[in-house]
Amino acid sequence: MSVLPKAVEELIEELGQLPGVGPRTAERYAFYLLRASPAVSKKTAEVLSNLHDKVATCPVTFMLIDEGQEVSALYESVVRDKKTVAVVEEPLDVAAIESTGAFKGTYHVLGGVVSPIDGVGPEELHIDELLTRLNKDQAEEVILATNPSVEGESTALIVQKRINEELPKVKVSRLARGLPSGVDIEYADQITLSKALEERQNL
Amino acid sequence: MSVLPKAVEELIEELGQLPGVGPRTAERYAFYLLRASPAVSKKTAEVLSNLHDKVATCPVTFMLIDEGQEVSALYESVVRDKKTVAVVEEPLDVAAIESTGAFKGTYHVLGGVVSPIDGVGPEELHIDELLTRLNKDQAEEVILATNPSVEGESTALIVQKRINEELPKVKVSRLARGLPSGVDIEYADQITLSKALEERQNL
Repeated sequence: MSVLPKAVEELIEELGQLPGVGPRTAERYAFYLLRASPAVSKKTAEVLSNLHDKVATCPVTFMLIDEGQEVSALYESVVRDKKTVAVVEEPLDVAAIESTGAFKGTYHVLGGVVSPIDGVGPEELHIDELLTRLNKDQAEEVILATNPSVEGESTALIVQKRINEELPKVKVSRLARGLPSGVDIEYADQITLSKALEERQNL
Repeated sequence: MSVLPKAVEELIEELGQLPGVGPRTAERYAFYLLRASPAVSKKTAEVLSNLHDKVATCPVTFMLIDEGQEVSALYESVVRDKKTVAVVEEPLDVAAIESTGAFKGTYHVLGGVVSPIDGVGPEELHIDELLTRLNKDQAEEVILATNPSVEGESTALIVQKRINEELPKVKVSRLARGLPSGVDIEYADQITLSKALEERQNL
């Protein structure tokens, strides 16, 4: 015999599917929602049920866009430089870079990283579309902004090789590696510190 | 201009209301749901939108029950002892005690703890209903199973006093305090260890 009402058990099960959420956390979320006004659950339910119908993918940059939009507003914007393209793994990376306000170019979302263990090869990523686009927009620079992980680095290498071969005039750069601001040298990990040494800047 | 689609922003905002969920975690959940099959979001949406309509409160034990049930199945069950009542704070505490399989009595959910800072006094809790019920069922023992926190302990004290005054024949006990199993003495906190010393068992 189940102790909790069926609706609560079901909700705990559904919430337990979220990444990093175990049964205890799912219980906490479920009881929070139960105690909160029904309007909160109803609103969340509404947003969730329309989620996939209201989100589309830009056919040029592969950024997520509102359903009904044709291409990403960031790409279409006249103030953005189409000749400078930052290549990122996921749509959230675009949000992160945008939040700096330091980049005035446009983005290209690869849609993941090359990861043989998960069966993701370069052909699963939007690399062909990147080259088509770079060619069409007569791009001058590509900034590889993949994550500093093994998969991110190897994906960047693959993209770099394709660009060098097919569009040799396009300059390819990648985000700097080094000490993150606010971290004491004594607490920095070995790889970060050796990268910071290797790529030291002349003053 | 918002970088992410409106539906995603809304979902992040809704999920960010859950306890302990900040914007980063909410983003992670939203992107997980976006990548998962639409059926997952639709199912969660369905469960959420019916949540409050499908859950009721037992008028005797104040445990959560399925809408349409009259009283808690745990209370109605013929194999459960109505003369032994465990008094808990919240419905999840019932689930926790049930999972031990070591208790064959029935439960009473207070619906919280006395907490002056949150404006919760004893009259907000289901203490009157507990006394009515103990009287009606000719209860013999009440086990106070509130949390070992300041609020839990003072709530237990209030309940104990009411029972002693109004139903002096009812035995009142509370859950044992002491070392949790699997924790080394050297890592136990001071309060736990002093309680364990104070309530030591003769062998």
